Amino acid sequence: MSASFDPTTIKALEEALPGLRERAENALNNNLPAATAHPARLHEAMRYAVLGGGKRMRPILVYATGQALGYSGTALDAPAAAVEMIHAYSLVHDDLPAMDDDDWRRGQPTCHRAYDEPTAILVGDSLHSQAFATLCQANAEDQPTPQTRVNMVAALAWAIGSRGMAGGQAIDLSAVGRSLDIAELEDMHIHKTGALIRASVKLGVLASGYSSDSEAAQNLDRYAKCVGLAFQIHDDVLDVAGDVNTIGKSSGADAARDKPTYPALLGLRESRELAERLASDAITALDDLGEGADILRGLAAYCIQRQA
Amino acid sequence: MSASFDPTTIKALEEALPGLRERAENALNNNLPAATAHPARLHEAMRYAVLGGGKRMRPILVYATGQALGYSGTALDAPAAAVEMIHAYSLVHDDLPAMDDDDWRRGQPTCHRAYDEPTAILVGDSLHSQAFATLCQANAEDQPTPQTRVNMVAALAWAIGSRGMAGGQAIDLSAVGRSLDIAELEDMHIHKTGALIRASVKLGVLASGYSSDSEAAQNLDRYAKCVGLAFQIHDDVLDVAGDVNTIGKSSGADAARDKPTYPALLGLRESRELAERLASDAITALDDLGEGADILRGLAAYCIQRQA
Repeated sequence: MSASFDPTTIKALEEALPGLRERAENALNNNLPAATAHPARLHEAMRYAVLGGGKRMRPILVYATGQALGYSGTALDAPAAAVEMIHAYSLVHDDLPAMDDDDWRRGQPTCHRAYDEPTAILVGDSLHSQAFATLCQANAEDQPTPQTRVNMVAALAWAIGSRGMAGGQAIDLSAVGRSLDIAELEDMHIHKTGALIRASVKLGVLASGYSSDSEAAQNLDRYAKCVGLAFQIHDDVLDVAGDVNTIGKSSGADAARDKPTYPALLGLRESRELAERLASDAITALDDLGEGADILRGLAAYCIQRQA
Repeated sequence: MSASFDPTTIKALEEALPGLRERAENALNNNLPAATAHPARLHEAMRYAVLGGGKRMRPILVYATGQALGYSGTALDAPAAAVEMIHAYSLVHDDLPAMDDDDWRRGQPTCHRAYDEPTAILVGDSLHSQAFATLCQANAEDQPTPQTRVNMVAALAWAIGSRGMAGGQAIDLSAVGRSLDIAELEDMHIHKTGALIRASVKLGVLASGYSSDSEAAQNLDRYAKCVGLAFQIHDDVLDVAGDVNTIGKSSGADAARDKPTYPALLGLRESRELAERLASDAITALDDLGEGADILRGLAAYCIQRQA
């Protein structure tokens, strides 16, 4: 373990996590339509797809970014809910038969298995719109300025569109069954998962009253870029390492789908080292920030140590 | 033909249409990513789904609303492009095998036929995000205020989400094979097509510098509600009437799918009368507006006279 992973920061994360997860859950609950609202089946399915599961890493990044900048007010709740709604929408569409065709997600049937395929398409579409509606809702005690809201909408829309998350999905699709080099694999992850992680931090910065040109914002963006990629590489590592330890499973899920992974290209050991180096770079990017940034520091360490 | 359909207004519409369509086409072209931008196949498919076809009714409503309020500046272009991107996204997802399973749209293969199903899902998702990115773009010569932009994003997000357009799709899905009454059928259309038509007019109002509380805005909203429903009823009428006149076609496309229609519930004649009454009500709602509103008046007449 690199010396840069300070146990105090992991402790700070562990202490903060239950409270942040609860806050994220409340923000989602308050910003999703009631399950009884018309049309009820769609609203029930939206809540099924979002609530009751998930690491909530993206809303936690919003809150932890605020904390790093000395802000923890209610203006963080709308962006926290919005980024998780987007994440949930992307999972619902990703799981569809025409895409990854997954039956299980977070220990329960995927949305199209629990409901049906057309409903799952509409759940994704509805969560996508609901995220933007949430960013515009004027119910926080301390409200961001209209210009800040416009900046948040623009940052989120850019990050999740064809030059961000959805583009990453398209790159991923075109990569199945084809051999990628490291640069192409990185390009895919930067779009597919990295863009929304960066947007989560950026929305936290904006909601905390900082401009995205500020030095703090730029350091935090560097942090987010490194953490996003480290998280993804560790995901690939877990897929392979889990494989080795699991009897009766002949290959990792990604390899089975002929999806390119870091361990396949770099080997397991070099992949682990790369993830560790990126997590360490992420922490270095926070050097100008005080103890308030310890949760973010702990998150960087967690990204490459988690077992699931 | 009712006396309220003034031939001057139809002439005003006919004269304005080519210019408005060209303006809509330019706004779309300028606000979609280049086909060569990375990832190129997705961007090419997005442009395929949006450009080169369609009546462009929603952007025309944005521009015509501006004109009714004496405004024709560049602030109308972003909302005009945004509402058409949303319309295009909804068609792409609607045509998917899991939804209506259509092979043709606007005389060319549907997006999932021309490309593939996962790409079509991502095209819809990307256009959805791109519409919001477009509303936030700061490239118009005369820029709406940040508060106006927030109001536009909120109005659009609300109109297309689970309590608007996507909700209407869900209501439609649940209606196939079941008998609806008139109130339920109207409820479906108000959501499925009506909400985006109302949003188009509302965005035109906001971009023209009017508040959505203003009397003009409320009259225009009444216009939009009536026009949206008249348009839909006439669609149902065309489906049946086209049927009668077409040899070798044994039933209307909607009836063949067991979808509820106005003529099935009210009969053809009463459906025609209802559409005419709604178009007439739409025109009455514009009584306080001068000649600038003639294009909107002409559109109301066109809605129930078009043959396709």
